[in-house]
Amino acid sequence: MPEFAIGVDVGATFIKFALVSRSGEMLAEARELTEGEKGKAIVVRNVLKGVATLLDGRDRADLLGVGIGVPGVVGYDGVIKTLTNVPDWENVHLAALAQAEMRRAFGFAPPIYVENDANLAALGESEFGAGKAFRDFVMITLGTGVGGGIILNKKIFRGSTGGAGEIGHVTINYDGETVHAGIRGTIEGLIGHRQITAYARALLSQSPSKIIGELCDGDLSKLDPERLTEAAKRGDEVALRVWRYVGEVLGAGIGTLVSILDARKFVVGGGVAGAGEFLLKPTLEQAQRFTLAAMREGLEILPATLGNRAGVMGAAALCFQGANALVQTDAKL
Amino acid sequence: MPEFAIGVDVGATFIKFALVSRSGEMLAEARELTEGEKGKAIVVRNVLKGVATLLDGRDRADLLGVGIGVPGVVGYDGVIKTLTNVPDWENVHLAALAQAEMRRAFGFAPPIYVENDANLAALGESEFGAGKAFRDFVMITLGTGVGGGIILNKKIFRGSTGGAGEIGHVTINYDGETVHAGIRGTIEGLIGHRQITAYARALLSQSPSKIIGELCDGDLSKLDPERLTEAAKRGDEVALRVWRYVGEVLGAGIGTLVSILDARKFVVGGGVAGAGEFLLKPTLEQAQRFTLAAMREGLEILPATLGNRAGVMGAAALCFQGANALVQTDAKL
Repeated sequence: MPEFAIGVDVGATFIKFALVSRSGEMLAEARELTEGEKGKAIVVRNVLKGVATLLDGRDRADLLGVGIGVPGVVGYDGVIKTLTNVPDWENVHLAALAQAEMRRAFGFAPPIYVENDANLAALGESEFGAGKAFRDFVMITLGTGVGGGIILNKKIFRGSTGGAGEIGHVTINYDGETVHAGIRGTIEGLIGHRQITAYARALLSQSPSKIIGELCDGDLSKLDPERLTEAAKRGDEVALRVWRYVGEVLGAGIGTLVSILDARKFVVGGGVAGAGEFLLKPTLEQAQRFTLAAMREGLEILPATLGNRAGVMGAAALCFQGANALVQTDAKL
Repeated sequence: MPEFAIGVDVGATFIKFALVSRSGEMLAEARELTEGEKGKAIVVRNVLKGVATLLDGRDRADLLGVGIGVPGVVGYDGVIKTLTNVPDWENVHLAALAQAEMRRAFGFAPPIYVENDANLAALGESEFGAGKAFRDFVMITLGTGVGGGIILNKKIFRGSTGGAGEIGHVTINYDGETVHAGIRGTIEGLIGHRQITAYARALLSQSPSKIIGELCDGDLSKLDPERLTEAAKRGDEVALRVWRYVGEVLGAGIGTLVSILDARKFVVGGGVAGAGEFLLKPTLEQAQRFTLAAMREGLEILPATLGNRAGVMGAAALCFQGANALVQTDAKL
């Protein structure tokens, strides 16, 4: 059996696991409940459960490491600073904790790498997905929130303290009305999942749509990005306008990323990205409008290809990169 | 005599030269007219003139190299893609050109490095100025335009093609009225030199200021950032409001830089930065407002210390860094 790694993606409800070969083949999958409300020890136990399931019947000598993605800020020392929406996880050295537990439970402990989940999704697309052909690109994940990861030289760019790539919190409307996570006019504040449906409902209150009404069985509280995509497919004007709006906001943000990073390749994933060309076409048009003419060459916006496997695949990729995983910069402030 | 480098800063009117020691001592200075309107050959001849002046009576064996800053986009191959406001400089390999001329004129040719002038100002502050203590920081230059340079790991971060750090073209007001260099709501479009005075005049048309009127001898066409700073020192309300506005725009941009790069240190230079604390205080306040609470630790905004010597000092520093000068990423699109 060739060498493999285990990628773990700790989500709000489920922990996902994948056994991945160096070439990016997903050899096995598993899933456990997260049970975050029961505290750290239970979450760690659930991580171990999934790892044990995947190791069962395999030679542990072939295991290069376990990569764990978490929805929060991870420092250069591997310590979780905070988890988004999960209390009691401040300053937790999850890698050390999991390693100790693994040694106790299995009698051995592989290298364990902990990283922000959006960064890992970017790394997954870089190694095995839409970003494979690029040395540098930016991954943007559109879902409940708007996340991001910056890949430079095929590695995660983490910045001064490990928090780089918070693209959702970039301000593109500094004097606007929307304040989200304490910041005015951010991309996430304008086109997070809920903001998109709220925007659509506001439009619908002025110009009702028969198509959207039918898709929601007359109940607009059911409105979601999937239905807006379906409505766009059927040529619904309101839905098309919503996606143009999302593209305008996203395109302005991408223009800013081009100006700062001189990035030219963008991979867009997450549930909201299911809108496909209804979203990506106006996004590219707007991104060009928000970019210097001299910096438009090679500008491309591509759909992610790994779907919700990007996180576990990236977590495994982190193990393959090993100690060289990080484009490290200034760890001390 | 210890080793030295020559830093050259090609400006619109003058070319500045400095002979700099490894420790950052400026041993000699020179200045020549640029004469850009007379064509490339004359500009190169003027560069050589200044270099010859500084080398006169010195041992050329101690010359480590000549660094040249230009106001434009320089690729990874050292080729100037375009110069801002100077025609006829597309795709010019200035280093090769200057080296050939130097060999012809002096009988020898040192290594020659060509780089964007804003990037070099950042490198100058990094090696010898306000950024000395930081591995990573962002330099922002406020003048006619708003320029920038990103220092990562003590080196210039150049991005995919060499154009990174175009901070002036970051959009913070995507649906605003101002369009500048073709882009809506950019930092430069809002707080370039001319925009600041236009903003001040708009305020003054509503609430005239005796202090500013006196400083301009009753002629508001004389209004400039220096007079606005002087008026602020005298407690003028309009001037203070102008600097608060500039700080708000700049702070929003800095917030975006924190979110993307996880940068925490910012050095602000350029003529407009002469406003000092009248500008930097509101800028820091606003930067904090436009930054996630979790990413505010260590956030600092400092005045540049090299003034208009930053460019030549940075050009010399590039020679000292030599072949390792660049944080290189994806040179091919």
